[in-house]
Amino acid sequence: MRFNKIAIIGVGLMGGSIALAAKRKKLAKEIMGVCRREVSRRKALKFRAVNKATLNLEEGISGADLVILAAPVGKIVNLAKKAAKFMQRGAILTDVGSTKRDSVKKIEKFANYKTHFVGSHPMAGSDKAGVENASADIFNKALVIITKTKNTDKQSIATLKRFWQELGCRVLIVSPQRHDRLASLASYLPHVVSFALSSSQTKDSVKIAGGSLKETTRVASSEAELWKDIFLSAQAPTLKAIRIFSNNLKTLEKALKAKNEKALIKFLKRAKRIRGQIKE
Amino acid sequence: MRFNKIAIIGVGLMGGSIALAAKRKKLAKEIMGVCRREVSRRKALKFRAVNKATLNLEEGISGADLVILAAPVGKIVNLAKKAAKFMQRGAILTDVGSTKRDSVKKIEKFANYKTHFVGSHPMAGSDKAGVENASADIFNKALVIITKTKNTDKQSIATLKRFWQELGCRVLIVSPQRHDRLASLASYLPHVVSFALSSSQTKDSVKIAGGSLKETTRVASSEAELWKDIFLSAQAPTLKAIRIFSNNLKTLEKALKAKNEKALIKFLKRAKRIRGQIKE
Repeated sequence: MRFNKIAIIGVGLMGGSIALAAKRKKLAKEIMGVCRREVSRRKALKFRAVNKATLNLEEGISGADLVILAAPVGKIVNLAKKAAKFMQRGAILTDVGSTKRDSVKKIEKFANYKTHFVGSHPMAGSDKAGVENASADIFNKALVIITKTKNTDKQSIATLKRFWQELGCRVLIVSPQRHDRLASLASYLPHVVSFALSSSQTKDSVKIAGGSLKETTRVASSEAELWKDIFLSAQAPTLKAIRIFSNNLKTLEKALKAKNEKALIKFLKRAKRIRGQIKE
Repeated sequence: MRFNKIAIIGVGLMGGSIALAAKRKKLAKEIMGVCRREVSRRKALKFRAVNKATLNLEEGISGADLVILAAPVGKIVNLAKKAAKFMQRGAILTDVGSTKRDSVKKIEKFANYKTHFVGSHPMAGSDKAGVENASADIFNKALVIITKTKNTDKQSIATLKRFWQELGCRVLIVSPQRHDRLASLASYLPHVVSFALSSSQTKDSVKIAGGSLKETTRVASSEAELWKDIFLSAQAPTLKAIRIFSNNLKTLEKALKAKNEKALIKFLKRAKRIRGQIKE
């Protein structure tokens, strides 16, 4: 598989990592970075993530047969609208946003005529940001969810699937709605909980932090602006996930209040068993 | 610093790691393991954690100038009672339990006459169990909390402090009450939340688990029996920590429900700032 030109819009941690991985696998003759600020453009070149980098969207996209929107969730729809204008007929447009229901619906309205839009969500990344932290390795065995609707071009799904697989990813294809339901439990909720857990700490409690607090709050270091947009963009499934979690927390709290050893053990063992199903 | 004989009661992950670290630093002429089952005794010897190992408490403790109870929280008080009987005059008794208010109060009733009891809580460990996972390195820069009450012998505190420092630990000395308040936020709560988060997952959501879910639920793999005892032994501060967390979660939920971007950002930024205070 080889593209003529891959344009990556937003060369941060995710965009930069995609660029590095695609370069390593020689998946394109040219990898072009499109940046918003001159400082990012220079960094993208300095860290050799891309072959070329520009601030000009039209120049960046022109001639690309794969355009990847690697911008934060809150900016994807607007960027897609602008990008679609400059894309060549038959080219594939994808994004790497963490929410799908809202954005796919909106983007399909204008990006599925001469070009083909297919949503992607690589379940990879870091709480760190910026191309300086980018790494081709983050895709190694990572899961990428590709979304499929009645409007999605089947050939483009197949091509995009192969692209992610070449980067080292496993691929799951589901509807945008199902994506958001799954991600609300597996991604949005852990972030919600981690932010709330961090918020509950005091000046003194953080001083005695051991492994458990460090691990459970690590994702609370993620970008506030990004996660605000993710939570808002997937408001309904996130609220539902919070309700499920709150009910479970209440069950545990009740058992503890009543000193109900049997109920406590049952709860903790079930949690441990479910955790055991997650592949490390 | 050199003890004649250190007796470690319970040679699992924690007891085994203490033994290995004390051996490496040559802190005792003899390190004796006291095990409950023959299979554990053989494992303790096989992994060379201790110089000798016995199933006989009296034999194990006899002549020891430092006795360390490395048993699960639920068993510490009873074990301390038995151990105190066999200890020589002036010897130091400590434990490594994760809760302190209840146990210290109970143990001081019988262990502070001819011997000196001082509570310890090393904020180190692993979600793995057993001497086969023990490592002297877990104490490297780890925090150990030592408890001090009006009954605690000052000389013994100083000796025990030096012991933990020799193993590579930082030491904090506080009252058992204060220990439990701090640990309820920094340790019990992350476990509660992690167990509840794991419980909220489904057969399908665990399949798409990325880094955030893996990290935030890792401690839900911990022993159910152990954590049931910890939560029960520190019931009041744990329930209080859950209330603090639930209120924070409600604040976040409310902001999301109202699509209040300003409140959301404020919440997430504060959480990120607090997380930034934790030293990795």
